[in-house]
Amino acid sequence: MKLSSKNLDQRLDTLYDAIIVGGGMGGLSAAIYLARYGLKCLVIEKGRGRSLWMQDLRNYLGIDPNTPGRDILNHGVKQAIQWGADYLPGFVEDVVDEGDHFAVRVKVGKQNSIYPVFHSKYLIAASGIIDILPQIENMQNIYDYAGYTLHVCMICDGFDMWDQKAVLIAGTESQINAAFVLNWFTPYISVLTHGLCTVGDEMKQKLADHGYPLYEAPIARILGENHHMSGIELTDGTIVEATTGLINMGSIYHNRYLKGIAGLEWDGENLITNNMMQTSHPRLFALGDLKQGINQVSIAVADGTLAATQIWRNIRRASTPRKWEENIARVTAAK
Amino acid sequence: MKLSSKNLDQRLDTLYDAIIVGGGMGGLSAAIYLARYGLKCLVIEKGRGRSLWMQDLRNYLGIDPNTPGRDILNHGVKQAIQWGADYLPGFVEDVVDEGDHFAVRVKVGKQNSIYPVFHSKYLIAASGIIDILPQIENMQNIYDYAGYTLHVCMICDGFDMWDQKAVLIAGTESQINAAFVLNWFTPYISVLTHGLCTVGDEMKQKLADHGYPLYEAPIARILGENHHMSGIELTDGTIVEATTGLINMGSIYHNRYLKGIAGLEWDGENLITNNMMQTSHPRLFALGDLKQGINQVSIAVADGTLAATQIWRNIRRASTPRKWEENIARVTAAK
Repeated sequence: MKLSSKNLDQRLDTLYDAIIVGGGMGGLSAAIYLARYGLKCLVIEKGRGRSLWMQDLRNYLGIDPNTPGRDILNHGVKQAIQWGADYLPGFVEDVVDEGDHFAVRVKVGKQNSIYPVFHSKYLIAASGIIDILPQIENMQNIYDYAGYTLHVCMICDGFDMWDQKAVLIAGTESQINAAFVLNWFTPYISVLTHGLCTVGDEMKQKLADHGYPLYEAPIARILGENHHMSGIELTDGTIVEATTGLINMGSIYHNRYLKGIAGLEWDGENLITNNMMQTSHPRLFALGDLKQGINQVSIAVADGTLAATQIWRNIRRASTPRKWEENIARVTAAK
Repeated sequence: MKLSSKNLDQRLDTLYDAIIVGGGMGGLSAAIYLARYGLKCLVIEKGRGRSLWMQDLRNYLGIDPNTPGRDILNHGVKQAIQWGADYLPGFVEDVVDEGDHFAVRVKVGKQNSIYPVFHSKYLIAASGIIDILPQIENMQNIYDYAGYTLHVCMICDGFDMWDQKAVLIAGTESQINAAFVLNWFTPYISVLTHGLCTVGDEMKQKLADHGYPLYEAPIARILGENHHMSGIELTDGTIVEATTGLINMGSIYHNRYLKGIAGLEWDGENLITNNMMQTSHPRLFALGDLKQGINQVSIAVADGTLAATQIWRNIRRASTPRKWEENIARVTAAK
């Protein structure tokens, strides 16, 4: 059921089988599976996740390629609740491992917030990442193009940039290297650093060797209309022509609530998992963009399947098998 | 484009980047990704795969839970072709590794068959499995219930069997062990062997301890109407009451065409793969039910994503980077 500050009291005494931090693609897939395994689960979703920003999901089998991410999320929430999952809009402030269960403290409501604590045997970390965008005075101008013609994922959208004039917006010198992958899709690449880093001679030479101009002045605004870019104006007045772009400025990982949990193995900001998405903590699973590997909807969805299945296996194996008592009585009587 | 005996001549000189054997969920996902990486690929689909039999796909995020498997397959074929993949109905007879490419011999057409040979750098084995069904005189009677109330996948459909009277149909003694997992969903289990195996005393005792009756006579027919089971009639006249059932008689693996390829590591009938679905043969990938792990649509779809991405990486890294020649000329002139 859908929880809110009005009814969440009903669940404060519940020991959930699993709490899922994050109602993105991976978290919702996990919730659908857990609910269909007959397990009690709660999805806690802070809103504004990466897949909410997708204007069209091009490469997920079975879905029309102009389907926005939010439609799949809304559909998944409805499905998960229908199968029996709980769903709460809220922000996970803190998770404490109490030995046999986790205590999950949630901020609910932006104003007059309350801070309920929920309990679960297992925790699924599915809170994902969010792309860092170039900060300009009028951020709405970025949002008007991001997800339409200004992309954040080359695997998802490289095809839609084919042989177009493109900008690559990078925040560090090493992020500029994406140009030498993006050139699979288009060789007409202008590199913009938004004034965030200095670029060494070796990289400058490499860009020149490829014919990719480098612009180091900050971005003033994106030019274009109806979400279609025509170029980028820099603060020095330069106009860089481009009908598409890739932002490669790294990501913010929504994993702060995990940092106090002992025994977790990290690879940078990513959690290390086994092939069932179990971390080095036996009751903690990690999905999608929080674990190692490529960031794709299809992969997060499969991760949710795997984590839920392993949690079901663990709980089932620890439970007493259900018997058909009436027949046992009969067998005993016959003996 | 869609290929057939009429137009496939146009592709006999093509060196595909990848040929995908099997147009199920994994193969179509791979085709969508490969096409969007700008790679040339061909899907060869023999028809009548496992997901075609699914009457409703309950647990795949974003899809209504009453969607039949065939709708997703048809949608995926359309998408893959739209992005640039080729698709051919046909049966792969044989694959020969010619060192730098594979030669794939296909039987096209059930009558007046022709046997064209296609060539590709990479091969994706996505031909899956098919469940073994109990053989009775009138197989249509089985098909009337299979995929509706008589299931083949506990993970997919256990939830829909909850606390119902169920039959477990097993073909070997070890397959009977599924009863002790199925009892998570319902304890009202009758075990049927369809006369295919003898059951030892130890297993008989275990079933009796759980109260699960064992019926060793062959199945005569499924009883019920409108795809809803009411029971099973055995050849000895016994009627076993049940409103649902699970067939657990093993699978036929569509992998014969792989058996002649040297250097493939197998785990029984499953191929061993790394985390990008690459087998021990560097140009051969395996997806979904052909590899190890659980058989789920979401997992096959992610496998397709991973295999296609690794093939793209390999091909991209081996290719000459594309340069923006006009700008290189300018830089040289300025020097």
